[in-house]
Amino acid sequence: MPEMMKAAIFVEPGRIVLDDKPVPDVGPNDALVRITTTTICGTDVHILKGEYPVEKGLTVGHEPVGVIEKLGGNVEGYEEGQRVIAGAICPSGHSNACLDGLAAQDGQSQAHGLKPMGGWRFGNTIDGTQAEYVLVPDAMANLAPVPDGLTDEQVLMCPDIMSTGFAGAEAANIKIGDTVAVFAQGPIGLCATAGAKLKGATTIFAVESVPERMKMAVAMGADAVIDFSKSDPVEEIMRLTDGRGVDASIEALGLQSTFEGSLRVLKPGGTMSSLGVYSGDLTIPLAAFNAGLGDNKIVTSLCPGGKERMRRLMNVIASGRVDLNPMVTHRYGLDRIEDAYDLFANQRDGVMKVAITP
Amino acid sequence: MPEMMKAAIFVEPGRIVLDDKPVPDVGPNDALVRITTTTICGTDVHILKGEYPVEKGLTVGHEPVGVIEKLGGNVEGYEEGQRVIAGAICPSGHSNACLDGLAAQDGQSQAHGLKPMGGWRFGNTIDGTQAEYVLVPDAMANLAPVPDGLTDEQVLMCPDIMSTGFAGAEAANIKIGDTVAVFAQGPIGLCATAGAKLKGATTIFAVESVPERMKMAVAMGADAVIDFSKSDPVEEIMRLTDGRGVDASIEALGLQSTFEGSLRVLKPGGTMSSLGVYSGDLTIPLAAFNAGLGDNKIVTSLCPGGKERMRRLMNVIASGRVDLNPMVTHRYGLDRIEDAYDLFANQRDGVMKVAITP
Amino acid sequence: MPEMMKAAIFVEPGRIVLDDKPVPDVGPNDALVRITTTTICGTDVHILKGEYPVEKGLTVGHEPVGVIEKLGGNVEGYEEGQRVIAGAICPSGHSNACLDGLAAQDGQSQAHGLKPMGGWRFGNTIDGTQAEYVLVPDAMANLAPVPDGLTDEQVLMCPDIMSTGFAGAEAANIKIGDTVAVFAQGPIGLCATAGAKLKGATTIFAVESVPERMKMAVAMGADAVIDFSKSDPVEEIMRLTDGRGVDASIEALGLQSTFEGSLRVLKPGGTMSSLGVYSGDLTIPLAAFNAGLGDNKIVTSLCPGGKERMRRLMNVIASGRVDLNPMVTHRYGLDRIEDAYDLFANQRDGVMKVAITP
Amino acid sequence: MPEMMKAAIFVEPGRIVLDDKPVPDVGPNDALVRITTTTICGTDVHILKGEYPVEKGLTVGHEPVGVIEKLGGNVEGYEEGQRVIAGAICPSGHSNACLDGLAAQDGQSQAHGLKPMGGWRFGNTIDGTQAEYVLVPDAMANLAPVPDGLTDEQVLMCPDIMSTGFAGAEAANIKIGDTVAVFAQGPIGLCATAGAKLKGATTIFAVESVPERMKMAVAMGADAVIDFSKSDPVEEIMRLTDGRGVDASIEALGLQSTFEGSLRVLKPGGTMSSLGVYSGDLTIPLAAFNAGLGDNKIVTSLCPGGKERMRRLMNVIASGRVDLNPMVTHRYGLDRIEDAYDLFANQRDGVMKVAITP
Repeated sequence: MPEMMKAAIFVEPGRIVLDDKPVPDVGPNDALVRITTTTICGTDVHILKGEYPVEKGLTVGHEPVGVIEKLGGNVEGYEEGQRVIAGAICPSGHSNACLDGLAAQDGQSQAHGLKPMGGWRFGNTIDGTQAEYVLVPDAMANLAPVPDGLTDEQVLMCPDIMSTGFAGAEAANIKIGDTVAVFAQGPIGLCATAGAKLKGATTIFAVESVPERMKMAVAMGADAVIDFSKSDPVEEIMRLTDGRGVDASIEALGLQSTFEGSLRVLKPGGTMSSLGVYSGDLTIPLAAFNAGLGDNKIVTSLCPGGKERMRRLMNVIASGRVDLNPMVTHRYGLDRIEDAYDLFANQRDGVMKVAITP
Repeated sequence: MPEMMKAAIFVEPGRIVLDDKPVPDVGPNDALVRITTTTICGTDVHILKGEYPVEKGLTVGHEPVGVIEKLGGNVEGYEEGQRVIAGAICPSGHSNACLDGLAAQDGQSQAHGLKPMGGWRFGNTIDGTQAEYVLVPDAMANLAPVPDGLTDEQVLMCPDIMSTGFAGAEAANIKIGDTVAVFAQGPIGLCATAGAKLKGATTIFAVESVPERMKMAVAMGADAVIDFSKSDPVEEIMRLTDGRGVDASIEALGLQSTFEGSLRVLKPGGTMSSLGVYSGDLTIPLAAFNAGLGDNKIVTSLCPGGKERMRRLMNVIASGRVDLNPMVTHRYGLDRIEDAYDLFANQRDGVMKVAITP
Repeated sequence: MPEMMKAAIFVEPGRIVLDDKPVPDVGPNDALVRITTTTICGTDVHILKGEYPVEKGLTVGHEPVGVIEKLGGNVEGYEEGQRVIAGAICPSGHSNACLDGLAAQDGQSQAHGLKPMGGWRFGNTIDGTQAEYVLVPDAMANLAPVPDGLTDEQVLMCPDIMSTGFAGAEAANIKIGDTVAVFAQGPIGLCATAGAKLKGATTIFAVESVPERMKMAVAMGADAVIDFSKSDPVEEIMRLTDGRGVDASIEALGLQSTFEGSLRVLKPGGTMSSLGVYSGDLTIPLAAFNAGLGDNKIVTSLCPGGKERMRRLMNVIASGRVDLNPMVTHRYGLDRIEDAYDLFANQRDGVMKVAITP
Repeated sequence: MPEMMKAAIFVEPGRIVLDDKPVPDVGPNDALVRITTTTICGTDVHILKGEYPVEKGLTVGHEPVGVIEKLGGNVEGYEEGQRVIAGAICPSGHSNACLDGLAAQDGQSQAHGLKPMGGWRFGNTIDGTQAEYVLVPDAMANLAPVPDGLTDEQVLMCPDIMSTGFAGAEAANIKIGDTVAVFAQGPIGLCATAGAKLKGATTIFAVESVPERMKMAVAMGADAVIDFSKSDPVEEIMRLTDGRGVDASIEALGLQSTFEGSLRVLKPGGTMSSLGVYSGDLTIPLAAFNAGLGDNKIVTSLCPGGKERMRRLMNVIASGRVDLNPMVTHRYGLDRIEDAYDLFANQRDGVMKVAITP
């Protein structure tokens, strides 16, 4: 094991650069993982642009696929050399929030308390995965062995995109035979579409305007794709449901327009499941909220993490029920990660997800 | 049975008057109930003021306690002369919404569809209860016999106030040992407080400033009452919870300030249960929503109706677990209902609920 | 409309015969449906054999596909000539059980009470569907229009087999990524397998020994089929799960062996969903029950009915997510129904389901 | 801190004796707690009698109240000298079961698997609490600070009896206005009664024959107590519910008769929540199970543990909603624990719970 490694580091708004950093020491409950594949997330772009604040000098990235290089002294049940992933959210397992079923909102060392997004540590409060090595905290709660026969790229979406998108479908309270609308078909929206199908929705409307994403939406299970650049998606969905509205809607972008649209297409009694990261106050139009009398639910979800979640998601991939591999549209070595950011931040060349290999 | 009866009729905004109307004919699935006690609801005041539109000439009121005068030809399982109540919301039982567990959003004759508040008929789409007689539609789904030993006033809150307030507590996903905040302690908020206690909350913060209501809040189960005229309730609740926030909050007024306060005191992972009838667009401040990443829920509830709901609520009263009788602060004959509206609409004399007896 | 019709009538144990009966009169809440296709269920065979008691002279059968011939005076929202189905279970919509979310256990005219299976009326407490016409009670709660483009045979399973099998999967609390075992792959077990896949199970073990059913199980979504005539299914499932057991199991036959096997393969914390109709006392072995300390659930389900359930199930068929048509292995005219009973009761010729057309 | 301590040790069936043992070493994730109060549980009596096997030489007991003596090197958020309790069940927090919401069934070091009762470690797989000191594993998941103002005896039930009894009520799916039957009113049954009240049950039938327990049942919330030595409790409950049966029943003893009674009083659609530790196979009578067609649930629960559960239960005590102190009927020093076992195992002198103080 070398003493130094390459890592993509947040320097200042507008600059994430590849630089040298020491390979971290391994504490008793940690594991050091040698990254074999990682990726760039929309959240990393927010960090790059300075829209989401992290400390200068932090290694970014939160989607690790790799090999266990070294285990802490208390870590049992794993072997060095084992292929593993870990979720973008790394619950400690021992916080009140974790023990109360809210692992993503892990408050960690706070005696009783919670902190929003407390479970998100990689590339947020500790060094992340866009590096040659990453230190996984609370390793026994977070390391999930990759089943034989699955490639790095097949499981690359599990840590974040797939877990988030599926969470959106799970929180939407979908019943067999439901009609569901998914607003936006970026990587998370596409996973929400796949998740809605997996939960029993039988009519799925996907709202999108980028041709490649519209096509991918159908592959993920959309029964109809509505191009919002050509017609108003709310009117279109109300027309397609004979004025009934949808049983559930999923917001997967983080804008007022998608938030509002998701509410407006909802039947009385329906659930709106919100996945987007918003960047300003939101308005709930009175009519879209039925004046508070519609028996509606608005539910937000942060990406569930932990090794059990990862195990389940890899089960889905291994079963062949869902194939997310086609979302990996571009591949870069870690040494070219700055180019990858440039491509991904500017959404050029039909990019969906970029595989980064150290 | 006389041919004509007295009824409180919506004439135009600003005017509800007592006038003569024919006693209605009884269809095969209906029951005619002779009202013995009814009451005025905040919603009736909205109607009076023209803020909620109903057809001119409609009898208002939606909280009936009475005696079965005449049963339709198909109605079985009841007897004329039986004491009954019916919910403010009268589900048909046979709509898709009803059969899908959304009885309050009953779409009735629409083939597949729903209409917000479709289940609310008395004093909204059909003649209401502030009259000598009321026609109860779909009687077999709606008539609930009053257990012997309960007075009219004891069950007077069941049709609306108690059902709504309890629904707010039920929708808040309260677990044993939870901390809950209830914003506003009008009749519905007081019932939400009682409901939160009945669901296992062990610390209940009630927010109110009217002394009589603050006192009543304690009787209903509040562990601490915060006078919002003296200190900021959000700051106060965060202080009292050591910055942790509450597991669930209940909004019981329908203003931006109570909506927003209910969100701001919520822990990550917590549920905000909204009961208020809003009269304009709402704003969700970014921080109060944790940017969409807090695993929060916003849930709205319309008063559940139907005879089974009424049976359960009367069980609560009969068991002595909750006593709502002290909420009846004033009593009027039906002939003086215009005075009762004047008192209630202007919230004079510490009025909470008014019993009206034809 | 003729005055007399042909109907399959229970005469005495061992004898169901085709005979003449008057076409029934239509009450105000009823609809008369002209049957175009119906089928024979395992329960009908129990009736034939005298194992389940019904009144002599009753028309049997509970799975109607047909055309509305005549509507009762109070029935709105339908037209004569419309193609419809109705569930095997016909909830009234107005019982306490219905209003409490337990429509299948409809207690109907009982004031407060429930009666097990109270919602099952066709061919049980009222004349059934193996006839030229059937009277559908509480028509507005039960008639579900068949979407254009679906054939009779495509929707023939919706009233019972599909609704029951799917209910087994729904009650099993299946989460995305779960491993599920389904014991027995008769028509209901096959639908349970399809339902488990539709709810997100990613590894499904089907237990069966009849070759046609084993093959069909794979078509419905089974990932592995275990021939219980060749190896012990409990041992096999524990081996395939590395001793972990399954997250959920579904019992679809009604024998001690399948009940017990379903418990024995269950992980601590897992749910056993029971669909079978048992004919004797059951034994729970101490170890299979973890001495009562395994956080396990045993859940039983009766076929959900009502028009909303039928609408959802037809959605599933229309979406192409599941194709149950291959289960219809034999076809008979109503005039040859006695032959059909002979074939089906003796399970000859690889019969799964028989379509009966008047 | 001394090197040796007194501990109650399982020697062989029939013999638990007080003897000397080394005070244990403290690993990095452990905490050493000096016991100030503990108690004897029915399970300990099973161990004493050899009915539940544990290793010879093990310290028994699983209900600790004490003071932190020494913290492991990785344990943060606590201070030595702090008053704490820990649950009878000590989840690791990092097992797949824990991360899947099944902490009591913690499989610990098994890669994917579960072991029934895997979370129960004190006095089962590791040394227990009937000693001067106990080592709490995974301390950050398990140590719960005792709020100021609560005595040892007030929180003595939290680790097991209260957590188990309340779990029985929580698993019973109790809705506001429900009727609930609780079979047996030993300490766990009494807590189940208190829990049922706290969840909104408005009619609670308690079944018991010991006068002190019958009286205590009323104090805990029972509306009627049925002496099974004087009348058949099933007949009595069916009579009291007008043949309707109960919405939920709770079994709190572990016998065929209470198991069966709990099923027989259940309405169609009702839930039977089982808490007892059974010692043999169980029989489900066909009629009590509605032949599998009653939409019934049988749910078993193991005592939930972990610091968040303890925090919530201590909230209940602190709020004054429930007072369990009267259950402590006898007090002994640790040096007289053999006498305490003799009293408790033979249920003499109206004993309910015994406080043991080192």
